[in-house]
Amino acid sequence: MRPERLKNLLERFQRGELSIPEVLDQLARAPFEDIGFARVDHHRALRQGYPEVVYCPGKSSDQIAEICARLAAAGDGLLATRAEPEVRRRLAAEHPRAEVNDLARTVYLPPAEPIEIAVRGAVLVVTAGTSDLPVAEEAAVAARAMGNPVRRLDDVGVAGIHRVLSERAELADAAVVIVVAGMEAALASVVGGLVSVPVVAVPTSVGYGASFSGLAALLGLLNSCAPGVTVVNIDNGYGAAAAATRINRLT
Amino acid sequence: MRPERLKNLLERFQRGELSIPEVLDQLARAPFEDIGFARVDHHRALRQGYPEVVYCPGKSSDQIAEICARLAAAGDGLLATRAEPEVRRRLAAEHPRAEVNDLARTVYLPPAEPIEIAVRGAVLVVTAGTSDLPVAEEAAVAARAMGNPVRRLDDVGVAGIHRVLSERAELADAAVVIVVAGMEAALASVVGGLVSVPVVAVPTSVGYGASFSGLAALLGLLNSCAPGVTVVNIDNGYGAAAAATRINRLT
Amino acid sequence: MRPERLKNLLERFQRGELSIPEVLDQLARAPFEDIGFARVDHHRALRQGYPEVVYCPGKSSDQIAEICARLAAAGDGLLATRAEPEVRRRLAAEHPRAEVNDLARTVYLPPAEPIEIAVRGAVLVVTAGTSDLPVAEEAAVAARAMGNPVRRLDDVGVAGIHRVLSERAELADAAVVIVVAGMEAALASVVGGLVSVPVVAVPTSVGYGASFSGLAALLGLLNSCAPGVTVVNIDNGYGAAAAATRINRLT
Amino acid sequence: MRPERLKNLLERFQRGELSIPEVLDQLARAPFEDIGFARVDHHRALRQGYPEVVYCPGKSSDQIAEICARLAAAGDGLLATRAEPEVRRRLAAEHPRAEVNDLARTVYLPPAEPIEIAVRGAVLVVTAGTSDLPVAEEAAVAARAMGNPVRRLDDVGVAGIHRVLSERAELADAAVVIVVAGMEAALASVVGGLVSVPVVAVPTSVGYGASFSGLAALLGLLNSCAPGVTVVNIDNGYGAAAAATRINRLT
Amino acid sequence: MRPERLKNLLERFQRGELSIPEVLDQLARAPFEDIGFARVDHHRALRQGYPEVVYCPGKSSDQIAEICARLAAAGDGLLATRAEPEVRRRLAAEHPRAEVNDLARTVYLPPAEPIEIAVRGAVLVVTAGTSDLPVAEEAAVAARAMGNPVRRLDDVGVAGIHRVLSERAELADAAVVIVVAGMEAALASVVGGLVSVPVVAVPTSVGYGASFSGLAALLGLLNSCAPGVTVVNIDNGYGAAAAATRINRLT
Amino acid sequence: MRPERLKNLLERFQRGELSIPEVLDQLARAPFEDIGFARVDHHRALRQGYPEVVYCPGKSSDQIAEICARLAAAGDGLLATRAEPEVRRRLAAEHPRAEVNDLARTVYLPPAEPIEIAVRGAVLVVTAGTSDLPVAEEAAVAARAMGNPVRRLDDVGVAGIHRVLSERAELADAAVVIVVAGMEAALASVVGGLVSVPVVAVPTSVGYGASFSGLAALLGLLNSCAPGVTVVNIDNGYGAAAAATRINRLT
Amino acid sequence: MRPERLKNLLERFQRGELSIPEVLDQLARAPFEDIGFARVDHHRALRQGYPEVVYCPGKSSDQIAEICARLAAAGDGLLATRAEPEVRRRLAAEHPRAEVNDLARTVYLPPAEPIEIAVRGAVLVVTAGTSDLPVAEEAAVAARAMGNPVRRLDDVGVAGIHRVLSERAELADAAVVIVVAGMEAALASVVGGLVSVPVVAVPTSVGYGASFSGLAALLGLLNSCAPGVTVVNIDNGYGAAAAATRINRLT
Amino acid sequence: MRPERLKNLLERFQRGELSIPEVLDQLARAPFEDIGFARVDHHRALRQGYPEVVYCPGKSSDQIAEICARLAAAGDGLLATRAEPEVRRRLAAEHPRAEVNDLARTVYLPPAEPIEIAVRGAVLVVTAGTSDLPVAEEAAVAARAMGNPVRRLDDVGVAGIHRVLSERAELADAAVVIVVAGMEAALASVVGGLVSVPVVAVPTSVGYGASFSGLAALLGLLNSCAPGVTVVNIDNGYGAAAAATRINRLT
Repeated sequence: MRPERLKNLLERFQRGELSIPEVLDQLARAPFEDIGFARVDHHRALRQGYPEVVYCPGKSSDQIAEICARLAAAGDGLLATRAEPEVRRRLAAEHPRAEVNDLARTVYLPPAEPIEIAVRGAVLVVTAGTSDLPVAEEAAVAARAMGNPVRRLDDVGVAGIHRVLSERAELADAAVVIVVAGMEAALASVVGGLVSVPVVAVPTSVGYGASFSGLAALLGLLNSCAPGVTVVNIDNGYGAAAAATRINRLT
Repeated sequence: MRPERLKNLLERFQRGELSIPEVLDQLARAPFEDIGFARVDHHRALRQGYPEVVYCPGKSSDQIAEICARLAAAGDGLLATRAEPEVRRRLAAEHPRAEVNDLARTVYLPPAEPIEIAVRGAVLVVTAGTSDLPVAEEAAVAARAMGNPVRRLDDVGVAGIHRVLSERAELADAAVVIVVAGMEAALASVVGGLVSVPVVAVPTSVGYGASFSGLAALLGLLNSCAPGVTVVNIDNGYGAAAAATRINRLT
Repeated sequence: MRPERLKNLLERFQRGELSIPEVLDQLARAPFEDIGFARVDHHRALRQGYPEVVYCPGKSSDQIAEICARLAAAGDGLLATRAEPEVRRRLAAEHPRAEVNDLARTVYLPPAEPIEIAVRGAVLVVTAGTSDLPVAEEAAVAARAMGNPVRRLDDVGVAGIHRVLSERAELADAAVVIVVAGMEAALASVVGGLVSVPVVAVPTSVGYGASFSGLAALLGLLNSCAPGVTVVNIDNGYGAAAAATRINRLT
Repeated sequence: MRPERLKNLLERFQRGELSIPEVLDQLARAPFEDIGFARVDHHRALRQGYPEVVYCPGKSSDQIAEICARLAAAGDGLLATRAEPEVRRRLAAEHPRAEVNDLARTVYLPPAEPIEIAVRGAVLVVTAGTSDLPVAEEAAVAARAMGNPVRRLDDVGVAGIHRVLSERAELADAAVVIVVAGMEAALASVVGGLVSVPVVAVPTSVGYGASFSGLAALLGLLNSCAPGVTVVNIDNGYGAAAAATRINRLT
Repeated sequence: MRPERLKNLLERFQRGELSIPEVLDQLARAPFEDIGFARVDHHRALRQGYPEVVYCPGKSSDQIAEICARLAAAGDGLLATRAEPEVRRRLAAEHPRAEVNDLARTVYLPPAEPIEIAVRGAVLVVTAGTSDLPVAEEAAVAARAMGNPVRRLDDVGVAGIHRVLSERAELADAAVVIVVAGMEAALASVVGGLVSVPVVAVPTSVGYGASFSGLAALLGLLNSCAPGVTVVNIDNGYGAAAAATRINRLT
Repeated sequence: MRPERLKNLLERFQRGELSIPEVLDQLARAPFEDIGFARVDHHRALRQGYPEVVYCPGKSSDQIAEICARLAAAGDGLLATRAEPEVRRRLAAEHPRAEVNDLARTVYLPPAEPIEIAVRGAVLVVTAGTSDLPVAEEAAVAARAMGNPVRRLDDVGVAGIHRVLSERAELADAAVVIVVAGMEAALASVVGGLVSVPVVAVPTSVGYGASFSGLAALLGLLNSCAPGVTVVNIDNGYGAAAAATRINRLT
Repeated sequence: MRPERLKNLLERFQRGELSIPEVLDQLARAPFEDIGFARVDHHRALRQGYPEVVYCPGKSSDQIAEICARLAAAGDGLLATRAEPEVRRRLAAEHPRAEVNDLARTVYLPPAEPIEIAVRGAVLVVTAGTSDLPVAEEAAVAARAMGNPVRRLDDVGVAGIHRVLSERAELADAAVVIVVAGMEAALASVVGGLVSVPVVAVPTSVGYGASFSGLAALLGLLNSCAPGVTVVNIDNGYGAAAAATRINRLT
Repeated sequence: MRPERLKNLLERFQRGELSIPEVLDQLARAPFEDIGFARVDHHRALRQGYPEVVYCPGKSSDQIAEICARLAAAGDGLLATRAEPEVRRRLAAEHPRAEVNDLARTVYLPPAEPIEIAVRGAVLVVTAGTSDLPVAEEAAVAARAMGNPVRRLDDVGVAGIHRVLSERAELADAAVVIVVAGMEAALASVVGGLVSVPVVAVPTSVGYGASFSGLAALLGLLNSCAPGVTVVNIDNGYGAAAAATRINRLT
C-alpha cells in the first residue's frame, strides 16, 4: 500500500467515510496476502515506491489473473511483464484501465492515485539496433510506471559511430542512461566514455550463433572498458528500469 | 586536467605567475599525451571528475612507472590498481606522497589540489565474508579517491541472517551500497530487498570448486530476485567504485 | 513387491486362498520383469520402500502404458513423472484409481495395500516464487507417494526477507526441508542458516536469460554459504523427494 | 557458546565461582564478536551444535590466527579447513591442544568440554580412488568434529565392481554414506542403488583434462540414475560432513 | 561401388551381357557423382565396406530423395539416418525394398547384392534405460547394415546393479560392446570393468536439466575410470556402429 | 546513397531536370533517416560500397517492410537476410524487382543503377557437406550483391580427402575462399594449407549433440593449424561475404 | 596375478619347490590387497591381460611408492603414468629393472615373466605436431607395456596435407591407429577417411587461447566427419593405449 | 625453399659453382625433412612466401634448437614465437644474425636472401590498451617477417572515443588493419565501421575475471556489429599477421 493511499485511508476514516471494519479490512492485507500459491506483496509500493511487478513466465494464466485481481483490489496498481498474448488479452479485459503494450509484452495498471516521486531527471533508454526494441520498450514502460520521465534514442549502434556521436547532447542531458544492446554490445562502452552519469546496460539475446543467446553481449558489458558501467540480466528491461529508479529517486 | 586546476592555471597566468610558454606546455598535454606505448589521458579528471586509474596487469613495471610519472607531473593524481608488491614498492619510492594499501593492492597519489565534489551521501561497502576483503578494500580505496565518503560493513553473509538484519539502519542510511560477495552471493538479494537505494554488486572469485572462479557468484547476482541490483565484473572493486561515483555525484 | 504384500501373499497361501501356481506366478516376476524394451523392477518397493517411478520423457506413450500396466498388475503402485497431457489422460483412463496432478505433471497409482513407513516427521516443501510451483508440486506428490507427511510454504523468496523470517517456527518444525528455488536461489542459504535440520535444495529453470535454464540456481546452491545444504538436479522435484525419504525414514 | 557451556557457566555463577562481571564478559560476546574484518560467531555451537569452521583460503595468516584466538578464548573449539602448511604450523604452535591433519589440511581444536550429541549411527566415508583421499579425509575430520562416529571404505571405484560389492554389509550398516569420487563419479550411482540410507556425494577435481577440474564428476553426480543421491560442491569434504551431521543428529 | 558388384559388372561384360557404353556409364560415376548440391560417393562401399549413409538433418526432402535415388540406381544400397516422418514415408514409397524403422528414424535400402564381410563376432548394443532406446536402435540398424550380427541388452542401468551383473555371460560373449547411456552414463564404467573386449560408448541427451542435453553423459564417459572405453558424439548411434564395424571386421 | 547516384543527381540538377527542392529532398535523407524505431542508413553504399543489409530476426514484419520501403525509395538497393517465408513473400510482393532465394532465406533488391566495383577476382564459396548449403547460399547471394563474381564448390569435406584434392586448381584460382563447414570443420585447415590466398571460414550449426549448435566448428576453425585462416560468427554467411568483399575490392 | 604366473606357481608347488604356506601367501593377495589408503589390484593382469597402471596425480610420493612396492613384490609388473620427476627418480632407484621415460613421464616395470599376447598387428601412433609428442609417447609406452608392437608417425598435421598423404601405406598397414592431435585436431578426420581400420583419437591440450586446454580438439574429434572415429579424454595417451589393446588382442 | 633461392641454386649450378651432389643435397631436403620428432618444412617459403614459423610451447628447448638449426642451415630464415626467455637466449647465441624481441617473445632469423613480395600497402596494428601490447608486438614482428610494411597505433580504446576518431586518416590509409583488443573488444566494431578495408581482429586475454581469459573478447569480436570483421584465436598475433599477409600480397 502506497504512503499516499495509507494517508488517504486514515483521512477518510477521520472524516467518517469509512467504518472501522472497512479500515481493518484494507490494513489486514498488509504486509502480504497469502493466496495459497503466492504471497501478494501489498507493501511493495510502500517499501520501493512503485507498483508490484508480476513476472508471468512459469505462472499459469489463472494464477496471473488471481494475483493481479488482488493487487488491483488494493488499489496499488501493477505491472505484468513477459505476458503472452492471451494473458495480455485477458488482463486487458478484466482491467479496463490497464495499458497493454504488445511490443514490450506488458500490461500496466496505474495505481488508483498517481504516484508522485521526486526524481533527478529523465531516464534515457538507448538501443543499438531495431532488434533490441522489445527489451527497450519493456524498460521504458517499467521506468514510466515507476514514476520516471522517459526519453528514447534508438538504433545508434557503433558500427556507424556518427549515429551516437550526433546525440551527445541528448546523452549528457539524462539523469540515467539505460543502454540496450545485443551482439557485442559495444555501444555501452562508447556511451560510458561519453557521459559521466550512471549507465545501466542490458544485454539482449539478439545475434548470430556465437552470441549464445546473449552471453556474448553479457560478457562484453561486464568487461566494458568504460569504468562504472553496470549490468543487469540478459533481456531484463524491467530490471534496468528498477535500477534506474533506485538511482533517479530523490529521497 | 581537473577543472579547479585549469581555473587555477588561468588565474596564475592572469596574476603573472606563469609565462605564456608555461601555460601552453601545461595545456599542450591535452587531451592525451602519446608516450609511444600509451596515450596518457590528462583530461580524465575533466571528463569524469576523478584521477586516472592505471590497471597494472599486463603492463611491465617500467611502463607503469612511466605512465604514473606523466600523470604525477601533470598534478592530476592517479590510482594504480592490481599492483604487484614490487610495483607498489617502486611507486611508493618514486612518489613519496603516495598511499599504498597492500590488502587492496593499490597505490593512490592524491591530486596536487584536493578534489571537492558534491555528493549525495556515503558509499557503504558491504562484504559477505572475510575472504572478500581484498576486493572490498579496492572498492573502498577507489571510492575515496573519487571523492566519496566511504563506510564499511564486513562479514555479514546470509548464512547468519541476524548479522545483516541487525545493520538495517546502517544500510538504509547509505546513498549507494556496494555489496561484495563470493560463493552464491545471496547477500545482494537480501540487501536489495531491505533498501531502496542503488545497490551495485561485485561478485568475487571466493569459493570451492564449483564457484568456477566467481562464475557462480556472477550468475547469482545477475539473477538476483531483488529488482534493480546491478552487477560489475568479477573481483572488480574499482569498477563498483566508479559506478557508485556516477550515482553519488550531484551535477 | 513390497514386504507387506509378500507377507500377505504367503498368509493367503497358508490359508489355502491361493494355489501354488498362483503364488509362483506372483513370485516369478521378481526381481525384474523383462518386457523387451524395459526391465520392470518389481522389487523396488522391497529395496527402497516406495513404488517404482516411471520417468516419461524419451519413452513413447505405448511404452509408458505397458510399463505401468505391469507394475499395476503386480499391485505395487507406481508414480509416473513428467507425463505429457495425453499420457496423463491415457493413464487416468487405464487406471481409474490413479491420481492425476496437472501442475506436477504426475500420475500416481497407490499400491494395492497402503505403505506404512515409520518416519521422523514432516517433509516441508518451500518455494521462492510462484513460478517454482510445478517443481515443488512434483516434489510434494512424490514425497507423499513415498510415505511422508508433507507440508508447504510458498512464495517466500528473500527479496522480501520478512516473508521467510515470519515462518521460522514452521521451518524449525520440519524433519526435512526441501527448498525449491530458481533465479539465484538465495533462499536455501537463508533457510540453511535458520534451521539445523537437513535441507535438500532443488534449483529450477526459472529466470531471465543469464539463468541459463537453471545453471545460475544450480551453481548458487552448490556454493551456498550455509554449510550442509545438499543439491539435486535442476527441476528434479522427484529426486528431492527421494532424498528426503532416505533421510526421513526410521529403519 | 554451546548449551552445555552456558549451563555450566550459570551453575558456576550459582555456586559463587564466578562474579557477575565475569559472567557478563562471557555472555557479552554473543551473538557474534565484531573484530573489524570479521564477525566471530560464538553462537554457532548453540545454533548448529558443532564448533565454528574457519575456511582459510582468501584470508591472511594473521586474520586466521586472530579469528581462531577469539574462538579458542571462548572455549567453543574450532575447525580450520584448507589451511596451508604454514598456517597449520602456526595454529599448532598457538594451540597446543589442536590436532593437525596434513592430508586433510585441517587443524581441529576440540571445545573445552566435549560435545555429546545423540546420533543415528555412523557416517561412512567412501572413496573411489586413492587420489580422492584428501577430500575424504577432510570430510572424516569434520564429521568427527561435529560429533559423528566415522568409518572409512577406500578405493572401491566401479571399474572393479567386486571391490564395492564385497562391502555391501559395511554400506548397509551406515546411518549416512558420504561418497567421494572424481572422474565420472559412477560410484555414487552404484552405492545409491545398493543402500536405502541417505547418500551425500562429493565430486572431486581428480581426473584427466575433460574432467574440467571436477565438472565432469559434478554433472555425473547431479544426473545420478540412483534416486535421492544429493550433491555438495566440488572437493567440499567439509560440506558433506555438515550435511551428514544434519541428517545424523537425533533432535 | 562394392567390390562384388564391380566384379559382377566385369563378368557380365565378359559374358557379353553389357555393352562397352553400359560398363562405362556405370564406371563413370566413380569416384563420386557431382549432382550440384552434393557429391554422391559411389566408392564408399569399396573403401569402407558398407553402404553410403545419408545424414538427413539440414537437407531438404528433395535433396535427400535425389541423393538416395542416385545411390539406389548404382545398386549400392543406402542408410538414411535421422529422417523425419515425412522423409521416411517418401523414401519408403520411392524404394519399395527399403526397411523403415520409426524408433530409430532410419530408412535402410539393402544393396542389390548382399554384403558378406568376415567379422569377429556379434556387436552387443546395451542400454541403461528405456529412454535410450532410439539411439540404441539407430546403432543396431546401422551395425546390421554394415554386416555385423547384432544382439541387444536393454534397461540394465547401474542403479540396480543386479540387472547388469546377471548378464555377464552375455557381455563377455560379444566381440564389441556398444554402451548407450544418458544421465551420468555410469554403465560404461561398470561394463568396461567387467569385460576386456572393446567398449564403444554413446552418451545420450536423456536426463533432467543439468544433463545439459547430454553433456553430463559425455563428460562422464570421457572420464570413465575403466581404461580403454572410447566415446562417440552425443546420440550418435550411427557413429558407434561405424566404430564397432571398424573393430569387428577381419581384414 | 551510392557515389554514382550522387553524381547522377548533381548532373540531373545541372541539366535542369531537378529543382532545388527535389535535390534537397534527396540529400536530406543523408546521413541516415530516422523513422522512429530505426535509423535507415542511406550512406552505407557510399561508405561501404554495397547496399544496406537488413537483418530480419527480432524485427517485426511491419518494421522490416518499412525499412525496406525507405531504402528502395532512395534507390539504394537492399539485401534482407534471415527472412522468414512470410517476410520473403511480402517483400517479393512489394518489390517486384526483388530476387528471392528460399534456400538462402534472402530477398535482394538490386540498386536502381548497377554497382560496378573493381575487384581482384572471384569469391569461391566451398562447403563441406550438403547440410551446410543454406549458409553457403546466403554467403553467395550476399557476395554477388556486393559486386563480386562468385563461384561454388560443394560437398568436399575431408572424410573423403580426394574430393577436395581434385579441386586444387579451382581453389588456387580464387581471389578469396569462403569455407563453410559444420561438425569439426576440418576442411578449412586443409584448404588453408593448399592455397595462399585469403581464407574466410564460417562455422555452421550442423552436427550431432556435441557440436553444441556450432561451437565445435567455431573452436575448430579458431584453432586451425593452417595459419592465417580467419573466422566469422556461426552460420554467418553474410558476414563472410562482407569480409570477402573488403578483401576483394581494389581501391 | 597373470595366468602364466598362476600356472607357474602351481607347477612349482607340484614340484615341491614351494610349501603350502608360501602358495597361500601368494594367493591370499587376491583379488586385491587392502593397504589402507588403496586396494592394490593383483588380478588386473588376470582380468585385463596387462600390468596394473598407477595414475600418479593426487597421490603422495609415499603412497605411489608403497603401491608400486606391493605390485612389484607380486611380480605383476606395473606402469606409473604422469609421474613427477622426483617420483620417477624414486621409483627408478627402488626398482632397478624399471624403464623411465621422461618425455612420457612414465615408469615401467616389466612383469617378472614377459607377457605374450596374440595380437592382430601393430598399433600406429600418429601425431599432428611436435607439441603433441608427450601424450603420444605416453600412448606408445603404455601400448608396448600391454603387449602390442608399436610404430610411430610424427608431425603429419593437415596444414601440409602432403605429409599425411605420403604415408598412406604406413597407415593402411596398422591394426589400430591412435591419432594424437591438439588445436582443431583435423588430422583424425583425414586419417579416418583414408583407412578402414579402427581409429582412436586423443585430443591434446596444445594450442592458443581458444583451444581452452584441449576442449576445441575434444569437440573437433567428437564431431569428426569421418564415421567411426572414437575419442578418449584430453591428453589421455594411456587411455588410448588401453582402447587399442582391447581392439588389437585376439581372444 | 623460397623461389628466389631455388632459382639462385640452379643458376649457380649452371655457372658451375655447384656440383651435382651439392645441388641434390639441397633439393633432397624437400618437401620436408624428417628429423624424428618433427618434419621440418623447407617448402613453406615456396608455398606460402614467408619463413617457417616455430610455435615453441610444448616443445623442449632441445627440440626447438634442432628444428631451428635445420631451417637456418637451409637458408630459409625462421620465426620462433612464444619463446621462453631461456629459449630466446639460446637461439640468440646460436644464431648471431637473429633478432630477439622480448615484448613479443619472438626470435626472428631473416632468410639468407631478403624476401621481396609485392604488397598492396601497409599493415596497421592497432591496440585498445597498453596491456594488449605483447600480442600486438607479436603480430607486428610476424607481419614484417612476412614481407609487409607495418605501422602502429596504440592505446586507442573506445572508452575515450576521441582517441580513435582522431586517427581516421591513419586508419583509412592502411591496406589491412589488425585490431588487438581485450576486455569487451569494442574497438574492432568502431574501426570496422570507420574503414572499408579488411579488418582482422585478435582478442586478447586481458581483463577482469569475467573476461574468462579472453572468451569475452572473442565472443565480442565474433558478434561485431560491423560487418566483415574477421577473427583469429585469442592472443594469436602471429595468426593475424598470417591472415593480413594472405590479404596484402599481390599475386
